[in-house]
Amino acid sequence: MGNHGEEGGRRSGIITLLTDFGERDPFVGVMKGVILGRFGAARIVDLTHQLDVFAPAAAGFWLERSFRWFPRGTVHVAVVDPGVGTARGILAAEVDGHVFLAPDNGLLPPVLASATEGAPVIVKVELTKLATLFNLPKPSATFHGRDVFAPIAAELAADRVWMEELGTERLDRGAVVPSPLRAPVVDGGVVTGSIVTIDHFGNAITNVRAKQLAKLTRPVVSVAGRELRLVKTYGEARRGELVALVGAFDALEVSEVEGSAAKALALTPGTPVVIREG
Amino acid sequence: MGNHGEEGGRRSGIITLLTDFGERDPFVGVMKGVILGRFGAARIVDLTHQLDVFAPAAAGFWLERSFRWFPRGTVHVAVVDPGVGTARGILAAEVDGHVFLAPDNGLLPPVLASATEGAPVIVKVELTKLATLFNLPKPSATFHGRDVFAPIAAELAADRVWMEELGTERLDRGAVVPSPLRAPVVDGGVVTGSIVTIDHFGNAITNVRAKQLAKLTRPVVSVAGRELRLVKTYGEARRGELVALVGAFDALEVSEVEGSAAKALALTPGTPVVIREG
Amino acid sequence: MGNHGEEGGRRSGIITLLTDFGERDPFVGVMKGVILGRFGAARIVDLTHQLDVFAPAAAGFWLERSFRWFPRGTVHVAVVDPGVGTARGILAAEVDGHVFLAPDNGLLPPVLASATEGAPVIVKVELTKLATLFNLPKPSATFHGRDVFAPIAAELAADRVWMEELGTERLDRGAVVPSPLRAPVVDGGVVTGSIVTIDHFGNAITNVRAKQLAKLTRPVVSVAGRELRLVKTYGEARRGELVALVGAFDALEVSEVEGSAAKALALTPGTPVVIREG
Repeated sequence: MGNHGEEGGRRSGIITLLTDFGERDPFVGVMKGVILGRFGAARIVDLTHQLDVFAPAAAGFWLERSFRWFPRGTVHVAVVDPGVGTARGILAAEVDGHVFLAPDNGLLPPVLASATEGAPVIVKVELTKLATLFNLPKPSATFHGRDVFAPIAAELAADRVWMEELGTERLDRGAVVPSPLRAPVVDGGVVTGSIVTIDHFGNAITNVRAKQLAKLTRPVVSVAGRELRLVKTYGEARRGELVALVGAFDALEVSEVEGSAAKALALTPGTPVVIREG
Repeated sequence: MGNHGEEGGRRSGIITLLTDFGERDPFVGVMKGVILGRFGAARIVDLTHQLDVFAPAAAGFWLERSFRWFPRGTVHVAVVDPGVGTARGILAAEVDGHVFLAPDNGLLPPVLASATEGAPVIVKVELTKLATLFNLPKPSATFHGRDVFAPIAAELAADRVWMEELGTERLDRGAVVPSPLRAPVVDGGVVTGSIVTIDHFGNAITNVRAKQLAKLTRPVVSVAGRELRLVKTYGEARRGELVALVGAFDALEVSEVEGSAAKALALTPGTPVVIREG
Repeated sequence: MGNHGEEGGRRSGIITLLTDFGERDPFVGVMKGVILGRFGAARIVDLTHQLDVFAPAAAGFWLERSFRWFPRGTVHVAVVDPGVGTARGILAAEVDGHVFLAPDNGLLPPVLASATEGAPVIVKVELTKLATLFNLPKPSATFHGRDVFAPIAAELAADRVWMEELGTERLDRGAVVPSPLRAPVVDGGVVTGSIVTIDHFGNAITNVRAKQLAKLTRPVVSVAGRELRLVKTYGEARRGELVALVGAFDALEVSEVEGSAAKALALTPGTPVVIREG
């Protein structure tokens, strides 16, 4: 694996985990055991383990909106993996100084598309090669989070391996499985987006970004047969009022002040949201 | 920010987080990313993120009953913040060697009232001042946990800032928004309290402390139309029996042995509980 | 407590926690506060806190299937403790280089039975002795996780105490409260097991191990009136198909590909599962 001493400081020592494993069973815990067994100084942060199972779309959305809040050199592991046990590939990528590991199932493209410091490096992970390099046990049929992702993440975070050593095939962005998420359509003064996910508070979070609303002077947001005004803060509205605002992750959200908009309007992922001049 | 070397050891390096953010979304994770980006050696402990949303009362109760189990010099961040986006203030306080950050919404008074080593230092946080001091980005409209609380907590835990630098206005306890929690009323031999919260096991936890029962020799606890005896341990009762006892946080609890008292008696926060001589 | 310098490296510094405490209340958080107050360098990993309350069986199952994924010298604390407040004992054990603390209620036997490097050391913890040794406060009536398990775990993980100092009575495996879990019965070519627990994905996890199926060439799995084939990976089946396979914890599982077998077949812990030649 060579001497990486000259690259000291490339890695933050932080590993984030984002999965659909839930927290009822010890799945996430044993991943951490494997990581700490290889890299005892790792600092492991849970992004979330309560994503809808088998649904890479919202996982990719949250990963893209979250990773820049961590220091450069952080290793982000995302395992929403309905294809475990099939021939689906595993991707490693480096985007703007952050490192990612995820199944090749549409989870990673939002992260890849967000690169601003040159094209991302994308490598197709070669398990047989790594098994020798890292002395990996034969992976189980159902839990690559523990048997593949955790050990590779530990080695990357410990700065004991180059991205390029993970596989010989370097991919273009166009060669990975695309995201099921679609970008909003901007047509003249009308922006048509959709709800990506419902958060813990019942806010419905859309795929519409602030910049896509920049040209509208008095935007009105249509969703579920209602017309809502766009406010800058909850403080501009009264308790119980339904409003739209751009939340903390650069996403237009449909919210009820101190309530659940998703419940009030029966909103679900996929619900269309249209913004036009009022 | 000055040289704090002489005060080495003032901080434990531990930061606790108590919020109503849930764990479905990466909200808590990105707070940790921000903290670790500023103070890589921070040890972050989740107190809970599953408090009832928008309800500072139970948050304040648990914070007050929990913080002394951490080493002195710990920084405790409590964000149950229905007022984000309004003009509500943010408080920093030092109580018996522990440091607190919370919105000024009634969450903090139970902690402030518990001070035994002199009056707490309470400072109204000045965001504009801190933005320059800590090079904070402009806070989002909806997520001060990430944009305000996390960076200040990191700087405090890293011992790079004095409490007094967070704001020029020092407050008396009476100047902060009061807690919605009320203390029990002790009238002659009768103690009238109420249920504050229901725990994971279905125990109904009240605002009544052990010392308030000290004068009763054979206390009987009336709740939801039932009269229960006060036991010292579950071992004094049989499985399925409803009892009252003083639990591990100096609070009178209504419990079913190996069952859920809240379910059995339909108990909810606010339910009155009366204790008198039997 | 003597000089343990010669044994440097006996402990990994890692402490795992497995409880039925849930994550609504700050119970787990204050355990971590107590641990960090005694041993600031501890790295604490949550195995799970969402086990069924008062049910040591599944806790013991998961602990046995999980602990070897952590480095040797890890201290594993398991508190599913319906008997808190009764005369139930507390056990400390060393099994194949790992250390365990648990109530003597049937939780620990699966771990003890898994020992491969000689008989486990099992000690009955003497609280009165330890209270002096570790300067423990008087334990509360209801929360030994915080008052007993956490401080002892910290002292063990910090390598400041020998197992033997925790109590004078050394037990045989036969002297501890047995597990309510039963091993599967292998009778000729027929293996009769049962479901231990349902995981987050709805997989029904049984007590049957791979080796118990080794003699069957074309095994058929009967459960809830259905006959399922045994596959090696989900990739051998189609989406929505019900199958059986040996999962990542050496347990036969009943699964629906990208679905919930437990929901589809109304499976619960205790449901019998029979495997015979097809």
